Amino acid sequence: MTLTVSRKAHFNAAHRLYSPDWSDEKNREVFGKCSNPNFHGHNYELIASVTGPIDPETGFVIDVKVLKDLIKTQVEDAFDHKNLNLDVDDFSSLNPTAEHIAVAIYNRLKPHLKAGLHLEITLYETPRNFVSYKGISL
Amino acid sequence: MTLTVSRKAHFNAAHRLYSPDWSDEKNREVFGKCSNPNFHGHNYELIASVTGPIDPETGFVIDVKVLKDLIKTQVEDAFDHKNLNLDVDDFSSLNPTAEHIAVAIYNRLKPHLKAGLHLEITLYETPRNFVSYKGISL
Amino acid sequence: MTLTVSRKAHFNAAHRLYSPDWSDEKNREVFGKCSNPNFHGHNYELIASVTGPIDPETGFVIDVKVLKDLIKTQVEDAFDHKNLNLDVDDFSSLNPTAEHIAVAIYNRLKPHLKAGLHLEITLYETPRNFVSYKGISL
Amino acid sequence: MTLTVSRKAHFNAAHRLYSPDWSDEKNREVFGKCSNPNFHGHNYELIASVTGPIDPETGFVIDVKVLKDLIKTQVEDAFDHKNLNLDVDDFSSLNPTAEHIAVAIYNRLKPHLKAGLHLEITLYETPRNFVSYKGISL
Amino acid sequence: MTLTVSRKAHFNAAHRLYSPDWSDEKNREVFGKCSNPNFHGHNYELIASVTGPIDPETGFVIDVKVLKDLIKTQVEDAFDHKNLNLDVDDFSSLNPTAEHIAVAIYNRLKPHLKAGLHLEITLYETPRNFVSYKGISL
Amino acid sequence: MTLTVSRKAHFNAAHRLYSPDWSDEKNREVFGKCSNPNFHGHNYELIASVTGPIDPETGFVIDVKVLKDLIKTQVEDAFDHKNLNLDVDDFSSLNPTAEHIAVAIYNRLKPHLKAGLHLEITLYETPRNFVSYKGISL
Repeated sequence: MTLTVSRKAHFNAAHRLYSPDWSDEKNREVFGKCSNPNFHGHNYELIASVTGPIDPETGFVIDVKVLKDLIKTQVEDAFDHKNLNLDVDDFSSLNPTAEHIAVAIYNRLKPHLKAGLHLEITLYETPRNFVSYKGISL
Repeated sequence: MTLTVSRKAHFNAAHRLYSPDWSDEKNREVFGKCSNPNFHGHNYELIASVTGPIDPETGFVIDVKVLKDLIKTQVEDAFDHKNLNLDVDDFSSLNPTAEHIAVAIYNRLKPHLKAGLHLEITLYETPRNFVSYKGISL
Repeated sequence: MTLTVSRKAHFNAAHRLYSPDWSDEKNREVFGKCSNPNFHGHNYELIASVTGPIDPETGFVIDVKVLKDLIKTQVEDAFDHKNLNLDVDDFSSLNPTAEHIAVAIYNRLKPHLKAGLHLEITLYETPRNFVSYKGISL
Repeated sequence: MTLTVSRKAHFNAAHRLYSPDWSDEKNREVFGKCSNPNFHGHNYELIASVTGPIDPETGFVIDVKVLKDLIKTQVEDAFDHKNLNLDVDDFSSLNPTAEHIAVAIYNRLKPHLKAGLHLEITLYETPRNFVSYKGISL
Repeated sequence: MTLTVSRKAHFNAAHRLYSPDWSDEKNREVFGKCSNPNFHGHNYELIASVTGPIDPETGFVIDVKVLKDLIKTQVEDAFDHKNLNLDVDDFSSLNPTAEHIAVAIYNRLKPHLKAGLHLEITLYETPRNFVSYKGISL
Repeated sequence: MTLTVSRKAHFNAAHRLYSPDWSDEKNREVFGKCSNPNFHGHNYELIASVTGPIDPETGFVIDVKVLKDLIKTQVEDAFDHKNLNLDVDDFSSLNPTAEHIAVAIYNRLKPHLKAGLHLEITLYETPRNFVSYKGISL
């Protein structure tokens, strides 16, 4: 039997949307107030969803405590109370859109999961805007 | 990389469930209090989810501001504070069940998305009842 | 010891804001789209909060099952899936603003509470708009 | 047209994680405080999602009232205010992890759905931990 | 200036409502399924609200990190994943109704607050039932 | 009759906690990661609650549309997508703790309310931390 186990987590961070390939004017035109040079910020709500078979011994797909600790060490410790543009290497040359943050989180968590487990990241940037990423291309 | 970007929106409206092919008695029998001739209403919560590749220039699948404005002009302006049965053409001959409202919203938004983008509509009729539609038949 | 016990409930209804003392034009001017002649509607979320001493025998201020049943018979059965303007006597000559609906609910529940218990009604008309009423004048 | 109709429900129950094949020490080591011999408990939030074609007569995939009643008789009456380990036969020899509870709920509901309808169960054990099951193996 | 600072926390526990002064029959009659001898359980959501003046040096009424840690050591460590009736001394001779749990939490936290700070406890037993206690009698 | 009308709004912003009277070391010691020199950020959820008598003509305490527009022009336009420390005059010499932000919002809105209306500001800095301010000293 295949199930999905999900864990919600939280971090908050400052960021701005900015492309170094563009003039300040074009950044303002495309990204609007999201490109404020002094940054703005969000409470990011993260859901990490792991899909795989139930372990017949434990009855778990993955011990949610393990998943919680993995999110803590790989994501929260790196992103929480940080400026994504200035403090986090993942975005040193990558625009921290919600899409790119979700991919970065996927890339940080996936190598720590056992082979055969699938991962989906859902990331709320605000209560009304969110993205999800499964590590695949259609 | 393929991701899904979702935007939540809101409208409220009156409606009643009613089939013109049936007697009043049969409408009452099948649809119960949802068929009250004087209408009842809901705060509909809408999630429009767009799936496609990340644009390498912007880092967006779709600019969520564009998606927000599209929902505003195509759905909210047409449905908000309206009587779905009496004021909205989509339901002049279509029973406004949550299922049909979700399909109508899909049909209003899909033509405005770039080719290659997939759309899913999730519609909460109440906090406990909701439907979703991806524009496909299994 | 004095505590407050609260119970959340739900009903959905159609309504329109309308003053019979005014012209249609003035109703439209003051109440805007909330005055649509064909009605609109809401999922009303209701919180009834009862304040009083703990009964030393049961450890309850009020048995929440009793409170739940009271809301069912006095409010939900009367308001749910109804048109507040047309189907509910409380609003035959009273404009069904959120404020007036909260007062009507207070007046329906209060007489059924034991002497010495205080009541507060909180009513969400939408997830972003809500009112509360304690039965007092400042 | 194929849609998914979802209904949220609620039950609360006591449980403990425990494998009869293991020593108490190993149970404590693997399951930690979730294995407290005197039990702990949760407010389980359940979402049952049914996927299928729209019935052209009613405009429903499934009447949500039917789905609500099915959840009531097959799940809530059996699980609500119970001790899953001691009071519910499904777990007489099955560790009541969130995964196993979701599978048990699937198995209770699926036989009551018309042929051709798909079912997915989402079960929140806490607001931050949840699982989902579609009755399939990848 | 006087403000209120609130912190939400979470614990889950098993309990049953039971008065040792009554027969089993009377316990069942008064407390219904809440008196199941094998216990049931809840995800309790706790809000601790502290009211007092802003410290002109820090700009805090109370450092929310201090409040969070206080809830952790005084409440979560004692109640989380426990059986309130069997594992927690506060309820060795006190029926663990939501009201009594709120009072017990108040009594655990209040002595650790600086003189002059007021405390209110709000405790959700389910998403629809909650109580609050300010340490006063009307 | 006296009621309270509440409106929820939203803004997101970057900030850091920092006292210019202290060394960097002391700022770090007192404010921890909240004092990150490159800022972090939040989705602030704001509730503005206005208490007063019902206007017998409209049935409103305050037209919630008026309250919504007031929050837009006085708070959202000034704070949304901004760096509170660098971009907002209110905090040019005031540490932007949740407490101080709530007071600043109160001071921005109160002068625009009619005499006799009371105002309470509730501000969520995260889903688990929030403050409220009524403009009074105990």
